[in-house]
Amino acid sequence: MIGIGIIGFGYWGPNLLRNFANLETARVVAVADSREDRFLKASKSHPAVKFTGDAGFIFSNPEIDAVVIATPVLSHHTLALKALKAGKHVLIEKPMAASIKECEELMELAASKKLLLMVDHTFLYTGAVKKLKEISDSGDLGTLRYYDSTRINLGLFQADVNVLWDLAPHDISILNYLVKEQPVCLNATGISHLNNGIENIAYITMKYQNGLIAHFNCSWTSPVKIRQILIGGDKKMVLFNDMDPSEKLKVYDTGYSVKSDEDKRDMLINYRTGDVYCPKIEIVEALQGVAHDFVNSIVNGTQPVSNMHLGLQVVSILEAASRSIRQNGAEVRL
Amino acid sequence: MIGIGIIGFGYWGPNLLRNFANLETARVVAVADSREDRFLKASKSHPAVKFTGDAGFIFSNPEIDAVVIATPVLSHHTLALKALKAGKHVLIEKPMAASIKECEELMELAASKKLLLMVDHTFLYTGAVKKLKEISDSGDLGTLRYYDSTRINLGLFQADVNVLWDLAPHDISILNYLVKEQPVCLNATGISHLNNGIENIAYITMKYQNGLIAHFNCSWTSPVKIRQILIGGDKKMVLFNDMDPSEKLKVYDTGYSVKSDEDKRDMLINYRTGDVYCPKIEIVEALQGVAHDFVNSIVNGTQPVSNMHLGLQVVSILEAASRSIRQNGAEVRL
Amino acid sequence: MIGIGIIGFGYWGPNLLRNFANLETARVVAVADSREDRFLKASKSHPAVKFTGDAGFIFSNPEIDAVVIATPVLSHHTLALKALKAGKHVLIEKPMAASIKECEELMELAASKKLLLMVDHTFLYTGAVKKLKEISDSGDLGTLRYYDSTRINLGLFQADVNVLWDLAPHDISILNYLVKEQPVCLNATGISHLNNGIENIAYITMKYQNGLIAHFNCSWTSPVKIRQILIGGDKKMVLFNDMDPSEKLKVYDTGYSVKSDEDKRDMLINYRTGDVYCPKIEIVEALQGVAHDFVNSIVNGTQPVSNMHLGLQVVSILEAASRSIRQNGAEVRL
Amino acid sequence: MIGIGIIGFGYWGPNLLRNFANLETARVVAVADSREDRFLKASKSHPAVKFTGDAGFIFSNPEIDAVVIATPVLSHHTLALKALKAGKHVLIEKPMAASIKECEELMELAASKKLLLMVDHTFLYTGAVKKLKEISDSGDLGTLRYYDSTRINLGLFQADVNVLWDLAPHDISILNYLVKEQPVCLNATGISHLNNGIENIAYITMKYQNGLIAHFNCSWTSPVKIRQILIGGDKKMVLFNDMDPSEKLKVYDTGYSVKSDEDKRDMLINYRTGDVYCPKIEIVEALQGVAHDFVNSIVNGTQPVSNMHLGLQVVSILEAASRSIRQNGAEVRL
Repeated sequence: MIGIGIIGFGYWGPNLLRNFANLETARVVAVADSREDRFLKASKSHPAVKFTGDAGFIFSNPEIDAVVIATPVLSHHTLALKALKAGKHVLIEKPMAASIKECEELMELAASKKLLLMVDHTFLYTGAVKKLKEISDSGDLGTLRYYDSTRINLGLFQADVNVLWDLAPHDISILNYLVKEQPVCLNATGISHLNNGIENIAYITMKYQNGLIAHFNCSWTSPVKIRQILIGGDKKMVLFNDMDPSEKLKVYDTGYSVKSDEDKRDMLINYRTGDVYCPKIEIVEALQGVAHDFVNSIVNGTQPVSNMHLGLQVVSILEAASRSIRQNGAEVRL
Repeated sequence: MIGIGIIGFGYWGPNLLRNFANLETARVVAVADSREDRFLKASKSHPAVKFTGDAGFIFSNPEIDAVVIATPVLSHHTLALKALKAGKHVLIEKPMAASIKECEELMELAASKKLLLMVDHTFLYTGAVKKLKEISDSGDLGTLRYYDSTRINLGLFQADVNVLWDLAPHDISILNYLVKEQPVCLNATGISHLNNGIENIAYITMKYQNGLIAHFNCSWTSPVKIRQILIGGDKKMVLFNDMDPSEKLKVYDTGYSVKSDEDKRDMLINYRTGDVYCPKIEIVEALQGVAHDFVNSIVNGTQPVSNMHLGLQVVSILEAASRSIRQNGAEVRL
Repeated sequence: MIGIGIIGFGYWGPNLLRNFANLETARVVAVADSREDRFLKASKSHPAVKFTGDAGFIFSNPEIDAVVIATPVLSHHTLALKALKAGKHVLIEKPMAASIKECEELMELAASKKLLLMVDHTFLYTGAVKKLKEISDSGDLGTLRYYDSTRINLGLFQADVNVLWDLAPHDISILNYLVKEQPVCLNATGISHLNNGIENIAYITMKYQNGLIAHFNCSWTSPVKIRQILIGGDKKMVLFNDMDPSEKLKVYDTGYSVKSDEDKRDMLINYRTGDVYCPKIEIVEALQGVAHDFVNSIVNGTQPVSNMHLGLQVVSILEAASRSIRQNGAEVRL
Repeated sequence: MIGIGIIGFGYWGPNLLRNFANLETARVVAVADSREDRFLKASKSHPAVKFTGDAGFIFSNPEIDAVVIATPVLSHHTLALKALKAGKHVLIEKPMAASIKECEELMELAASKKLLLMVDHTFLYTGAVKKLKEISDSGDLGTLRYYDSTRINLGLFQADVNVLWDLAPHDISILNYLVKEQPVCLNATGISHLNNGIENIAYITMKYQNGLIAHFNCSWTSPVKIRQILIGGDKKMVLFNDMDPSEKLKVYDTGYSVKSDEDKRDMLINYRTGDVYCPKIEIVEALQGVAHDFVNSIVNGTQPVSNMHLGLQVVSILEAASRSIRQNGAEVRL
């Protein structure tokens, strides 16, 4: 039975509480948030959990083996550091921290203390992404040529991080999950309509050694909610439309293949536009999978799917994107 | 009665022939294309039109007052120059020519000879764009903040120009039609999956002095056809989905307004998400409007909606985008 | 503070418990279900509620003022009768009972004992139906000409009632809510693919004195879930698509009007196909509205929106439909 | 070379002319319509065709081997009779004629004179229906259990026939094409909002010996255009949405199977909801297929896909539906 402490009880906190409470292998010992008014409803339904305004209670409590951090990004590093130093395993909401340096410091400490450090990239545990990974790994898509994601909606302007740090971790983590190679460079552009240096619309284009191109379109100011990723292989292509309740994944029997140098010269591209296939998606609560993988990885000493290395890669890309935006969109090497 | 000669009878030529033939104020005198096999069907239905393999016939024919050029981009300049020198008015398929320099040369010659030079940006004559212009001009949208277009499909890889020169003129011309200001800089990125320097996927981000940001996503390698423009004003926003047969335009009663500096500091954004309104769109054949505007402008000595200045602006942006791509996405001033 | 007892804790029971527990004017005293295994989860989260296998506890408990019955249809009459006789107010899941006779007996008893008898036609409390009622009552639609509903999905075959008794109450209750007049006759057809006399697919056509026609298409055996109602007035028409998360209601500026007898003879119909308008829908949990209306009506001695008269009308139509099906689709007067 | 005469040049006539003109094995000799103003455009593009106001010209012309009748339904019988008597093969627009009796008279005459009599049920020649037939014939769907079609739009009120005779032939012909068995009975209901006895909204429910149920929903007064057929087999189900440009057919790996009498008693239904598959549809102009099948069948002495027997079955169902409507929806045996 792993004792769990949760720090941060804003939007996501109650979901974490519910999902860890549902695990048979864990017990939520305490929840901390400086805004104690957030506890009202939850404390009634969870009489056995200690609700406190003092995060220190979590770090010092010997019944707590693992800490879940669901606070704003800028506080991740400080809180995770304290938790690790107190000998607790740590699960942090995405993105892991505010810089590569912060991530690496946490990772080194976790490694040296043999503690688990995991990042909550929830999307990796959805039925759709699990099926997508399965399809991609099967080789059916061929070599991936492009990855084009759009994640826009009418979101809250955040005061600490820009729209890329808020929304792009979902799409970057999925890409990193599907593709083993690492990107070599990126360009990013964006705009802050409040003129406060926090972009509410931003774009990244990222390139890989093998010719894969990835593009991310993020916005907090779209009147329609679009959550769509288009993935093109040279054999087949996939549309992942997360807003479609019944056909989230569509696999198109469409590719583009060039057969020889001569073909290339003649620009003869063999298009195949064929059948479309919508695989059945397992209906699961993704966060349940996260909670289960976290506790299981602690118990078994294994690495979770959404591990700290993937978490670091996501932050590396976000940091490079921020740099590119500051340099007027110039290419940044990764 | 304006005598019309058409040069180039590939994909678009038969549509031009049909639409000019339908005009009561014009008469198609001749059609020229070096591939005479393309004439077979049309010559039967249009016995009064001269079909010829020799474009020179068009330039020298005194019955021809105006020449329509529907050939590959790289030949636009040469053919239009000959037509203008022969004293003919000219309508060129988009984009006007392959460089700013070529465009300017044509524009100067047209101006000095008092001939009409027009570019066929067909989209400006669609019912949807006419309604969009009406809505935008009414002030209902407020100040435009962003313009985000996606135009992707499974298209033919072209041998002479990249995907931006092929597809983006539609979206750039619409943007230029809606917004009087000119952009100040852009970044573009892209990839040529054939490694021949002709990008099949490419992106542009473009900025205006007043904070408007525009983004263009173009691809010849998408299994689904998406033709979508999202336009955000600070009062209302519009989704133009050209693939939706019955609801091409959706006007969202959604804006984002910041009221004062204090508000800005507190990041208090007033979101309004309200009703959606799909205005009735006039059903017209846009190309009929182009043909009519061309002949009418010749007769009346006026400038058409899709005039040469707008055509030059489109090419300016395309040329800058190509330069940015060659410079690894670095910002290019316009 | 109204004391609530709930009988039946299957699919809908936990929702009832949660919504009554959220009310500040009510207190859930007890929940009864003969299958006590259904209580496991809920009893943890609701330590103050008595969970019992004995419905008799509910009837005899003096702390319970009102009983909510969420059991199979065939038991509604017996349980509601007991509750009323015990002096409790009653809320019954739709449909109210298995026959007109059963409904009338309950209604008479409730009236004579001055107790509230209400039916849970949840749809009447959704944001979409409330907005629909508002639009209809405003007169914008003109005179209603047709009402055409499709409610099909892959549902569980039920052992006690056919697909009409299961699904049509939603659509019939909405129609009854919108239209004051009562239908004069109906025809119903259907099929039982299990050959057990319980139709899994069935249709009703119903007519009103004033020319309104209503049609209901219900199925448990559709691979796609469709929940759609098309309502045609002679001035405007509405599409209510409950599966569309963002545009549930579309109001079409389309009507059909015949102006005079002469027009009629000439069959000149003025079609107007104009703008489409998607009003903003209030996002509410409909069942919260039901719970609130029930308790409020008890306290104030008023009639709720989803009152017993409306409940009886729904059962009247269902009973007539069953008779028509048994008579091979022959017309049944209402 | 088969000489073709076309009678009736309203909405559909120009399409027939163009498609027969495109055939290499036929020559359109003449087109007749009493409203000669309809010829203006076509006569220019088809200088070799004789346009006449006198249908008699068609019957007496020895160069005409076959007559295509595209006039209102009520004139089909008279015109086809004349054509057959004049020794011409006949293609009639759907529905074949206004009654079973009329159809049978034509069929007998055609048989006795060894002439081809064909009905233009165009839908049978679409890529979607050809693929649907292929899927159905393969046995993949299992035994068909239901067929549910909705064909509604804002159509012209017709002066001679009701909405069933206008729209249902499409859906009935597709059903007849897919299923060899004949229905045993039907019920139909409808309403004439002009009170002229010509229904603008109508419904049919039809039953087969083997438990198949078919339902048709037709309306001229819907603000949205829906053309949708849902076909349920006990192994798989198909949704044919003719308004979806890219995914007209969706095959659902969903069925319902009851294994034994015991299962039936226990109501244990095995639902399988699995993958969805959208087969590639051949893009063809269906009317070209009709024209080709007509001429080909004349030349080879074979029966076309859309033959007179299928045409008679369609009229039999329409006639029975009209009778049921007159009898207040009572069941009519077929």
